[in-house]
Amino acid sequence: MATHKLLLLPGDGIGPEVMREVEKIVGWFRKRGVGFETETDLVGGSAYDAHGKAISEAAMGRAQAADAVLFGAVGGPKWDSVPYDVRPEAGLLRLRKDLGLFANLRPAICYPALADASSLKREVVEGLDIVIVRELTGGVYFGEPKELVTLENGQQRAVDTQVYTTGEIERIARVAFDLARKRRNKVSSSEKMNVMKTGVLWRQVVSRIGKAEYADVELEHVLADNCAMQLVRNPKQFDVIVTDNLFGDILSDIAAMLTGSLGMLPSASLGAEDPKTGKRKALYEPVHGSAPDIAGKGLANPIAMVGSFGMALRYSFGLIDEADRLEKAIANVLASGVRTKDIAAPGTNAVGTQDVGDAIVKEL
Amino acid sequence: MATHKLLLLPGDGIGPEVMREVEKIVGWFRKRGVGFETETDLVGGSAYDAHGKAISEAAMGRAQAADAVLFGAVGGPKWDSVPYDVRPEAGLLRLRKDLGLFANLRPAICYPALADASSLKREVVEGLDIVIVRELTGGVYFGEPKELVTLENGQQRAVDTQVYTTGEIERIARVAFDLARKRRNKVSSSEKMNVMKTGVLWRQVVSRIGKAEYADVELEHVLADNCAMQLVRNPKQFDVIVTDNLFGDILSDIAAMLTGSLGMLPSASLGAEDPKTGKRKALYEPVHGSAPDIAGKGLANPIAMVGSFGMALRYSFGLIDEADRLEKAIANVLASGVRTKDIAAPGTNAVGTQDVGDAIVKEL
Ligand SMILES: CC(C)[C@H](C(=O)O)[C@@H](O)C(=O)O
Ligand SMILES: CC(C)[C@H](C(=O)O)[C@@H](O)C(=O)O
Repeated sequence: MATHKLLLLPGDGIGPEVMREVEKIVGWFRKRGVGFETETDLVGGSAYDAHGKAISEAAMGRAQAADAVLFGAVGGPKWDSVPYDVRPEAGLLRLRKDLGLFANLRPAICYPALADASSLKREVVEGLDIVIVRELTGGVYFGEPKELVTLENGQQRAVDTQVYTTGEIERIARVAFDLARKRRNKVSSSEKMNVMKTGVLWRQVVSRIGKAEYADVELEHVLADNCAMQLVRNPKQFDVIVTDNLFGDILSDIAAMLTGSLGMLPSASLGAEDPKTGKRKALYEPVHGSAPDIAGKGLANPIAMVGSFGMALRYSFGLIDEADRLEKAIANVLASGVRTKDIAAPGTNAVGTQDVGDAIVKEL
Repeated sequence: MATHKLLLLPGDGIGPEVMREVEKIVGWFRKRGVGFETETDLVGGSAYDAHGKAISEAAMGRAQAADAVLFGAVGGPKWDSVPYDVRPEAGLLRLRKDLGLFANLRPAICYPALADASSLKREVVEGLDIVIVRELTGGVYFGEPKELVTLENGQQRAVDTQVYTTGEIERIARVAFDLARKRRNKVSSSEKMNVMKTGVLWRQVVSRIGKAEYADVELEHVLADNCAMQLVRNPKQFDVIVTDNLFGDILSDIAAMLTGSLGMLPSASLGAEDPKTGKRKALYEPVHGSAPDIAGKGLANPIAMVGSFGMALRYSFGLIDEADRLEKAIANVLASGVRTKDIAAPGTNAVGTQDVGDAIVKEL
């Protein structure tokens, strides 16, 4: 049987705790003969503490060599004042850029059992199942110039540059349309074409690809400010939302928060398919952050991290049965009421991070 | 008695309908001896249809000469494919820039009587009263280069540039801190300093101004993606949110949508105080857009537009009693159940745009 190379980058805050539960599950699959080879390395603030930068060259080499990277979370108040170039987030941004992970898929699913945890009315979010497809290697995150200079008059002047080219938009549009075909066949493309030239190009290119290659998929255009509003007003009108790096950052966080299931949502960041091997680089991470306030206390919900491993099984390793099995185990554990504090039903006892991991292994 | 010069720019879609109700109210005040001089001109798509551009030089001259501009709304599918430089929004952007309206104040208030119209749970939004202070003449809206070019390989490349200088951030920060002092004394400053240099400068400057000049005001920093999340999770944690032009566009729309009162929310865009006259240029507009789908049908809620006139009374003309009187009239009309469709209580009959205007005049 093939061996799948996994790089684990737990990172900071609750990252290590939730990653530990994934390791249990990897161990379970390994015992049943699925070939996993795992390595672990530092990223983010913990890498900065050890090496003075947010990811070491050695770790980058391991990431390049891996079939998939599992990423926990980075950042925390401890590193709030480290220099910009070595701040924890720089490790994540470098991974995205150097591995060419241009397509970030962020599902926002509202589990009926958890609908009451949402701040929205039950009927607005119950059964919600949408995906934000976020462009991840372009836009204002990486455009040049990006600088902070002191002017002659003593004032400072900061500049960020948002750049998009036709090709960058085409490939992310195709990811969104392909995904919509496997779902409810609708793509909503979001930008600010009324004030941004990148928005003008974005709309042009998405429209053209839609007409030329995906005439069977419904396409609509929604300005980003209106999209944010509509997500709050009536999120179930959407199926797949495709948008740029910065709008995707915000819109996907809104979508995740709507569900009341933030601690449950995995995400995948994918590169282009290698025409020779058919393989694509990939990184899987929970949508939630490093949650420094609860780190180290065993309170964190590991399901988003475990679910991210499930996505790796499905999308990077083609282990569909195993992915189904893992997802079923998670669902059963949830249904049985074994839940961390963030999703515990009112009046029930919350359990710890490890208890959830153990329960999932038991269900498997 | 002084004469107050008002320029009315109804614009497109429902703009003219809701502006007509303001004219009734202006008329009422005029009869009671308050000196108003009004002019009306075109902006947006209607200006484009008449002059081939989104605002004429004559209208710009009138705006410069006015004590306050009342703005309806611009845009609609009819103008979706007009050239970028003359699209309806260009008229609004030129007004903001040329009048130097750098401070956009967008209150988000959830009227208890309307809390059920929100998609959020009543307890999450009831009594919500926050203000988004949005920087309005800088950032990615106006930074250069802003271009769409064809490369040698035939691909297109679009660029937008976000620029901020120390001075631009200082003055908007002061607006936010001053406002917080009159409210609940808390400022939340929002940016993406983990990926943007403008965010780094933004946080630095706001922190410095806060420490040096407003040590009595609580200041917190919230990344823009997290701020969007927190607005959905628990908006009442905020008092004043200060942020840049683009984040402000999105965050203020989210905040408005939370309240369930979108058709009720006015906004003010203010320039710097003239050191000689003590006057400042100002434009007042509803937070909602041109709503082309209901335009011309007499269904639009005029309260946001009438409330915008109320803000002009208060902030541009110092007519505090008159502003109070108008606000009280609006509240009474709402309480009496005379409501347009967007806010009608379930099981009650909705009235038209004009009915609401007439009812307000009657209450006055
Ligand atoms: C950590 C940060 C750099 C990152 C981003 O802004 O992309 C995060 O918010 C995310 O959405 O993955
Ligand atoms: C009409 C448009 C240019 C404008 C903006 O993006 O600023 C609008 O969305 C707003 O918020 O006033």
